[in-house]
Amino acid sequence: MPKISLKGQEMPESPIRKLVPFAEAAIKNGKKIYQLNIGQPDIKTPQVALDAVKNQDIEVLSYSHSAGFESYREKLAAYYQKTAIPVSKNDIIISTGGSEALLFAMGSITDPGDEVIIPEPFYANYNGFATASGVKIRPIESTIENSFALPPISDFEKLISEKTKAILICNPGNPTGYLYTEEEIKQLAALAIKHDLFIISDEVYREFAYDGQKHFSIMSLPELSQNAIMVDSVSKRYSMCGARIGCLVSKNQEVIATAMKFAQARLSPPTFAQIAAEAALDTPDSYFEEVIEEYVARRNILVEGLEKIDGVKVGKPKGAFYCIAELPIEDADDFARWLLEDFEDEGETIMVAPAAGFYSTPNTGKNQIRIAYVLKKEDLERAIIILEKALKSYLKK
Amino acid sequence: MPKISLKGQEMPESPIRKLVPFAEAAIKNGKKIYQLNIGQPDIKTPQVALDAVKNQDIEVLSYSHSAGFESYREKLAAYYQKTAIPVSKNDIIISTGGSEALLFAMGSITDPGDEVIIPEPFYANYNGFATASGVKIRPIESTIENSFALPPISDFEKLISEKTKAILICNPGNPTGYLYTEEEIKQLAALAIKHDLFIISDEVYREFAYDGQKHFSIMSLPELSQNAIMVDSVSKRYSMCGARIGCLVSKNQEVIATAMKFAQARLSPPTFAQIAAEAALDTPDSYFEEVIEEYVARRNILVEGLEKIDGVKVGKPKGAFYCIAELPIEDADDFARWLLEDFEDEGETIMVAPAAGFYSTPNTGKNQIRIAYVLKKEDLERAIIILEKALKSYLKK
Repeated sequence: MPKISLKGQEMPESPIRKLVPFAEAAIKNGKKIYQLNIGQPDIKTPQVALDAVKNQDIEVLSYSHSAGFESYREKLAAYYQKTAIPVSKNDIIISTGGSEALLFAMGSITDPGDEVIIPEPFYANYNGFATASGVKIRPIESTIENSFALPPISDFEKLISEKTKAILICNPGNPTGYLYTEEEIKQLAALAIKHDLFIISDEVYREFAYDGQKHFSIMSLPELSQNAIMVDSVSKRYSMCGARIGCLVSKNQEVIATAMKFAQARLSPPTFAQIAAEAALDTPDSYFEEVIEEYVARRNILVEGLEKIDGVKVGKPKGAFYCIAELPIEDADDFARWLLEDFEDEGETIMVAPAAGFYSTPNTGKNQIRIAYVLKKEDLERAIIILEKALKSYLKK
Repeated sequence: MPKISLKGQEMPESPIRKLVPFAEAAIKNGKKIYQLNIGQPDIKTPQVALDAVKNQDIEVLSYSHSAGFESYREKLAAYYQKTAIPVSKNDIIISTGGSEALLFAMGSITDPGDEVIIPEPFYANYNGFATASGVKIRPIESTIENSFALPPISDFEKLISEKTKAILICNPGNPTGYLYTEEEIKQLAALAIKHDLFIISDEVYREFAYDGQKHFSIMSLPELSQNAIMVDSVSKRYSMCGARIGCLVSKNQEVIATAMKFAQARLSPPTFAQIAAEAALDTPDSYFEEVIEEYVARRNILVEGLEKIDGVKVGKPKGAFYCIAELPIEDADDFARWLLEDFEDEGETIMVAPAAGFYSTPNTGKNQIRIAYVLKKEDLERAIIILEKALKSYLKK
């Protein structure tokens, strides 16, 4: 039998999905599960986006431009301009989800053996994209004590070598919910310019900034224009994860021209979803106001609820819809599986993501979980009660 | 300024798309262009597929399973079973176009520096996927004289080394239109088993087999079950190139488990397009009968027309909707550009794909072009007249 590749063997399994078989078995046994494990919002997709797809009159569903609809890129540029990001349609390549934009970015700026520095914990699939691209991730630990703020710049400098090609951040952060300040972004920018590095900034949660704090994009800094690559997506912004539409944005025309070659090889991003995504740009501001209000209320319920549980520590999120909680246990992998297999409270349990999968350093974050607050308030309240009871029961074992 | 990657520099530009700026300029100048350069069919997408998307009642456009809808994979398995391919839903991963399935296949079975043998001319984007994956393509020339039939097995054996991981074929072939016989497939299978290689078979044109010849899939051979990886797509079958839905199919569960890790990293294939693709499986047989009849008529017009032109040689296609023509010129790149920039007949010209981009061996196929017969019969007839006149005029220069 022919052998699969080393790369294929090294590809990490998704930490979010590896519990799925246990959840399926639990559901089969009649358990109700509150799913806090995956960033799939329950918020309705804007009607204007859904209607655009219903009302299309396509006869031949043909390829679009490899960079995506020109009309969509124009409207998207106008949207960015409103948030102080001075880009034109030619600085944007529409991708199949933010995922593909990350692959294009890595392919365009790294060769096998190159390194990318990422503050950890980080979005677990960065591991997969790095392995697929032959890139080595050099993690820098950020800590729950200061809610996962940017680690000291000196920590970055220690890791920078000839192989370092980029620093990758997620802002606001999945899984931390941390929103970098303007000051932190400027520190990173100075570092990138000093060492001639790219900064890839995953800003798919850019709309989700709370407590009056404003999202500050790496794309707003003129001095960083040749170093900055932004990855974005409609998945979270408009609750359209299934569209699979994202984009890669850069003022660096060499990056765009190179990423375009990757884009051309795969022909085009999906047409129906581009129609939805373009229409979504007409979503009224009131939609976001309601959505943000809802997430802030959920976050408050979650964080306050968690902080009341004995021995639980929380990194207070200022954006996105995740938080990391440290539990008074040793192995969150075991706990998460136990929750599905062996625990129930009145026939109900919760599903959480063990946080170790969001760390690249071995044996780190083993007592932490990521919670996505994508459930209704009353469900979140119930989920916290279940967590509290479960912890008590688990610790008695 | 930070540097782009060597990989990014080496990524080939699409030979099909590099003429686009000249075409755009010609159109601006009022020229009408018959586009024979790209495999974008003019055939209508089945109404049942378009209606399914119009009639969906999605409220939250959520992620699907990373392997694609279970219901779709089940129906797709039933479709393959009808064509003597004994697969189940668990042997199928739905991908974002055939392109992504090829990337998953290469990632799962090759590491940087590994080699894949491909008969040339071949689908130009294989170059891009190979470069993106760090894989070296070892081409074997097939020739227009026998319509690009399978090269002798001894030619393959000469290239096989420890680095060889797979043989990649496209059946029926883009750009050749060649349909491999059962005998040829069995020869390849024996070779793959002897040397413990994978065979990746790109069968996206599997429905388009003409002249009573039946398509024979590598998936039909039980002895090859652990070596065979099929790549498929709805793009051409249902004229839905813009859907971006394909799949990777294999009975080798190690391949499927590995490809699933790549699939999970990118979360899921597009939801709207999966709805369309699943519904498309209900397309009545009469649709294909009409489509095949139309393509056969077009092929006959094209091949007969080309054969009448002095000095033109044609590889007679038995499938797909492309053919390679050898012209009495030296440099088809120059000719194709000249057609757009400097030639017109009553304000009209044609756009063709220079075939050199479909060869991996340098300076091969330079006097050949690929023609996609995706235009109405009367337009094809007119296009052939334009080609004949253009050739005369070009040769006089």
